[in-house]
Amino acid sequence: MAKEIERKFLVSGKRWRLSADAGVSIKQGYLATMDDRSLRVRAYSDGRACLTLKIGQTALSRDEYEFEIDPAVAEEMLGQAIGTVIEKVRHEVEHKGFTWEVDVYGGRYSGLVVAEVELRDETDKPEIPDWVGREVTGDYRYSNQAMALSEGALRSSHEPQSQSG
Amino acid sequence: MAKEIERKFLVSGKRWRLSADAGVSIKQGYLATMDDRSLRVRAYSDGRACLTLKIGQTALSRDEYEFEIDPAVAEEMLGQAIGTVIEKVRHEVEHKGFTWEVDVYGGRYSGLVVAEVELRDETDKPEIPDWVGREVTGDYRYSNQAMALSEGALRSSHEPQSQSG
Repeated sequence: MAKEIERKFLVSGKRWRLSADAGVSIKQGYLATMDDRSLRVRAYSDGRACLTLKIGQTALSRDEYEFEIDPAVAEEMLGQAIGTVIEKVRHEVEHKGFTWEVDVYGGRYSGLVVAEVELRDETDKPEIPDWVGREVTGDYRYSNQAMALSEGALRSSHEPQSQSG
Repeated sequence: MAKEIERKFLVSGKRWRLSADAGVSIKQGYLATMDDRSLRVRAYSDGRACLTLKIGQTALSRDEYEFEIDPAVAEEMLGQAIGTVIEKVRHEVEHKGFTWEVDVYGGRYSGLVVAEVELRDETDKPEIPDWVGREVTGDYRYSNQAMALSEGALRSSHEPQSQSG
């Protein structure tokens, strides 16, 4: 298994686009979710698809098992996802020796842009680019799982606030 | 995806062994379980391993996605299974045009023998061999998931009954 160690930040502005690649579109859904684990299916616009099992409750580091699967099977599985199928375009941005992944969300989360950097170990200190805003590592609302299941209080800019009380 | 349509029975006696193959040992564990779906990992003694996602609440028929995986990865995953890792030896028995799978359980369910027959469609009527006993299709206690999670009232012959009250 691989260890996934990453930090996550909100992104403000468009300066990151100056050094970003063209990006790849991703559709992803959750096939199973439990307290400490999730099973995710992803279909990429370049024709790849994968199934990923993540286990572990630490936000910064989780065990990750990933399998390449047939894209046609992934499409079928997306039809059986729990909650919303998340759509986003993922760009890569190189910055001072680290690769940042910038996810531009579409669909119901249109307007949200999030950057992640993968660390080699938990003590790694990547330099934070100036287009990066508030850190949301470990904030469950910004996990794709919470977004798919609508468990977070996160709202897209296009969604009106609900009236409480 | 494949459709899994099967009937399940208890087995009495050893007559089935007369026409059974040598069998293959199976270790299996559940990596995720929800109301209508489960993710299972299996390692076979012949070196194969697979990951299986089953979706659907009907006992007789469920959607099934199966992927061959690396046996070493399967072993790692078994270490992260929820509940008990089930051990059994699966034999195949041909009977009147149908293949019966006879599972001889080990470990905490030692003594339990269950036969399953896979149907081509829900109206298929396989002839029932005379070594087959009570039908338990749809009895959740005899699902491997319930056995792994100890959710059923099923007990092995080696386990004492608990005292209630």
